[in-house]
Amino acid sequence: MSKIQYSNDGNIKHLLTIEGLQEELIYKIFDLAESFLNVGNREIKNVPLLRGKTICNLFFENSTRTRTTFEIAAKRLSADVINLDIDSSSQSKGESIFDTVDNLISMGADIFVVRHPEPGMPELLAKHVGGNAHIINAGDGNHAHPTQGLLDTFTIKKYKNRFDNLSVAIIGDIKHSRVARSEIHALTTLGVPDIRLIGPTDLMPTDMSKINLKIFESMDDGLKNVDVIMMLRIQKERMIGAIIPEEGEYSEKYGLRKKHLLLAKKDAIVMHPGPMNRGIEIDSDVADGQQSVILSQVTFGIAIRMAVMSMLIGKNI
Amino acid sequence: MSKIQYSNDGNIKHLLTIEGLQEELIYKIFDLAESFLNVGNREIKNVPLLRGKTICNLFFENSTRTRTTFEIAAKRLSADVINLDIDSSSQSKGESIFDTVDNLISMGADIFVVRHPEPGMPELLAKHVGGNAHIINAGDGNHAHPTQGLLDTFTIKKYKNRFDNLSVAIIGDIKHSRVARSEIHALTTLGVPDIRLIGPTDLMPTDMSKINLKIFESMDDGLKNVDVIMMLRIQKERMIGAIIPEEGEYSEKYGLRKKHLLLAKKDAIVMHPGPMNRGIEIDSDVADGQQSVILSQVTFGIAIRMAVMSMLIGKNI
Amino acid sequence: MSKIQYSNDGNIKHLLTIEGLQEELIYKIFDLAESFLNVGNREIKNVPLLRGKTICNLFFENSTRTRTTFEIAAKRLSADVINLDIDSSSQSKGESIFDTVDNLISMGADIFVVRHPEPGMPELLAKHVGGNAHIINAGDGNHAHPTQGLLDTFTIKKYKNRFDNLSVAIIGDIKHSRVARSEIHALTTLGVPDIRLIGPTDLMPTDMSKINLKIFESMDDGLKNVDVIMMLRIQKERMIGAIIPEEGEYSEKYGLRKKHLLLAKKDAIVMHPGPMNRGIEIDSDVADGQQSVILSQVTFGIAIRMAVMSMLIGKNI
Repeated sequence: MSKIQYSNDGNIKHLLTIEGLQEELIYKIFDLAESFLNVGNREIKNVPLLRGKTICNLFFENSTRTRTTFEIAAKRLSADVINLDIDSSSQSKGESIFDTVDNLISMGADIFVVRHPEPGMPELLAKHVGGNAHIINAGDGNHAHPTQGLLDTFTIKKYKNRFDNLSVAIIGDIKHSRVARSEIHALTTLGVPDIRLIGPTDLMPTDMSKINLKIFESMDDGLKNVDVIMMLRIQKERMIGAIIPEEGEYSEKYGLRKKHLLLAKKDAIVMHPGPMNRGIEIDSDVADGQQSVILSQVTFGIAIRMAVMSMLIGKNI
Repeated sequence: MSKIQYSNDGNIKHLLTIEGLQEELIYKIFDLAESFLNVGNREIKNVPLLRGKTICNLFFENSTRTRTTFEIAAKRLSADVINLDIDSSSQSKGESIFDTVDNLISMGADIFVVRHPEPGMPELLAKHVGGNAHIINAGDGNHAHPTQGLLDTFTIKKYKNRFDNLSVAIIGDIKHSRVARSEIHALTTLGVPDIRLIGPTDLMPTDMSKINLKIFESMDDGLKNVDVIMMLRIQKERMIGAIIPEEGEYSEKYGLRKKHLLLAKKDAIVMHPGPMNRGIEIDSDVADGQQSVILSQVTFGIAIRMAVMSMLIGKNI
Repeated sequence: MSKIQYSNDGNIKHLLTIEGLQEELIYKIFDLAESFLNVGNREIKNVPLLRGKTICNLFFENSTRTRTTFEIAAKRLSADVINLDIDSSSQSKGESIFDTVDNLISMGADIFVVRHPEPGMPELLAKHVGGNAHIINAGDGNHAHPTQGLLDTFTIKKYKNRFDNLSVAIIGDIKHSRVARSEIHALTTLGVPDIRLIGPTDLMPTDMSKINLKIFESMDDGLKNVDVIMMLRIQKERMIGAIIPEEGEYSEKYGLRKKHLLLAKKDAIVMHPGPMNRGIEIDSDVADGQQSVILSQVTFGIAIRMAVMSMLIGKNI
């Protein structure tokens, strides 16, 4: 799965999944992101690293939020951005996506940021484009969302400095979450010794038996002494074929409330990939509380996406 | 209502309404707009005043036209522009708008241009964001549309040079018009001694009794010797709960025709905020006639919006 | 039809149709396009020729693909781009399109790229705007698509070097194709001696009797010894009132297959304006084969559009 991400000289060519990504490369992305943290936000200038480059946001699934983060990151690198929202249901299958991409490459597109409901589509596109363009997976079905996994672990690094002594709990529907999958692979590669998954048995993953994960059915058991609490968004739209939990009952058992923070370490941080369903998977006083780093995740997400884009283009390794 | 628009050092922080805006500040905006009149239009260069800044067009009500004016103004200042068209009916109430704005601030948004069907929403957002971003109200329900009020009075100043000797008539549905409200406040602050409202009694405002306004039910009475004729667009979508006038009858009584110009001063100017319903509230030979300054309003609107944005960012006072 | 495209000093002012365009001017556009071929694609820089200019993509018919080519071309010239997708069915007829354009000119728009379902609408707009802006027809009903005609002949020139010894076959529904019309006019002006149209009699043009065209009903007859094979996309949406051919039968008789290439010259090139219906009007092994120049057309299309835009603005003749 991962080899296609690398070119023959060992540089990264596409970002499709965190699975198999080398620890060293992740740290390179973190270093680059660190250098971008002061660009744009309150300073006056963009950086010209990607001037003349064309970034295509190719979204087959609507997500104003994620699309905007990539658009802002690209503009801060002085790239040109083309937004293409394509209704995947109106697409004839397979071939025509490749034609769309081939055409955009012929127009000069350098990077495709792809969101698609079908797991594996970004990888198929990466195989198709070969060395002619770069693919960034911005979420494919329940498979992967690598920039989210990178920005989440970058956030942890900013607050906790190291990974090798951490206990991290991920709470919610892991089974259908591409965010959780990417988080788990990033945490594993970075050497987190204690990764806990909390949620109903039905919503635990069945495809990650090779990874050392601790499964908990109750918040009270799973949150004990953790350093990091990573909440997930309930996503009913991806629970096809699964037992959809009743919202009130789910919230009662797995919604993060202030009392839960007492179980974790005193300096534990609370994370959420957004957008939040306040009052369902997270209470407002926790989301807006002292221990929440949710808005920092958003800020760091821009820097991470700038780092990934400039690394793919190869001007910054 | 107005204090929140100012920061402690007396500079303007948000533009929410013209009500309570100091006359001196309005003239500052006019001076700045004047200096931007030669940027872009037929000249070759943009100005770099907002380079690296991110302007978010946050439109909860569809308006290609207004959105475009802000987009062009921002680009002429070299800012990055993010367009977000959000269907307000799909929003869960209240909280999630704040989350959207908080997220965009975390991504580096500097100014939000907000259009929302609910009166007062831009003010709520301004209270929420505090010093972290600037809010420009681009129209909230029937409450206010301050940049329209500013560009209208700027247009009057360009053609009439002073305000203290003018008679200005505003014709149409004042009651449901945010444009009229902002015009009235601007004209009042700038010292126009004779402001007349012409329209059916049902469509006269009930919330402006403190302002010295002359009410007329007939065009023949109200237009006598005026210097400025400000037409309004009929907006049935905002007349909920009011008696919706029958179009033909309304047009007969309150549509501006060539004969009406004979009642006004010889050099009277005709204004309309657009888009026009030709043949309904205004006849084509008036809209396109010698006395019409309708397209100048549009040109000046870009300069006014450039002035407001650069003043909020604080590089130009 | 063509005089309105020129200003009094003989420069081109609008691009509405290739009919009547001077051969010399077409070669000027080709030369300019040639000079833009190395901009953007794999190089790092844009060119500043249109900095501070505003290009409006005014699309009354949805076409992400064509809109994107103009957007990329404009950005490579450093212009600001405003995209306006307008549902033409919601437009009140006639007048309001003119008001939209007048307003955008007042905002500083320099060039309008117009796609409209009604033949002749770009010409009406050109008459309306006079010297205040430039109109590029990006497709009007079944009338014309001049930049497509230019990029197609530019592609032929790049591969065949000259026109005066060529046999060119255009295959498909010529009758309803603005692309074919523009191709035929360009080929004629450039002196191609042998232009063949292949397709069912019902889909042959009835309005081009003055041009020397050879009509063929069978691929086997029409493709003999041609240098260039130009396929058309089947466009059922424009066949109103015509006998819509049954897809399978049409494909059987007029779909381009590998065996057909044996009829043409050995070095014949295969073209298609895209998007392709693979397996219907063209087989995949032909579309992706050695003789296909379909993706080159796309690349050259960006350069041609850059050339047209900079020539209209007048900085490059």
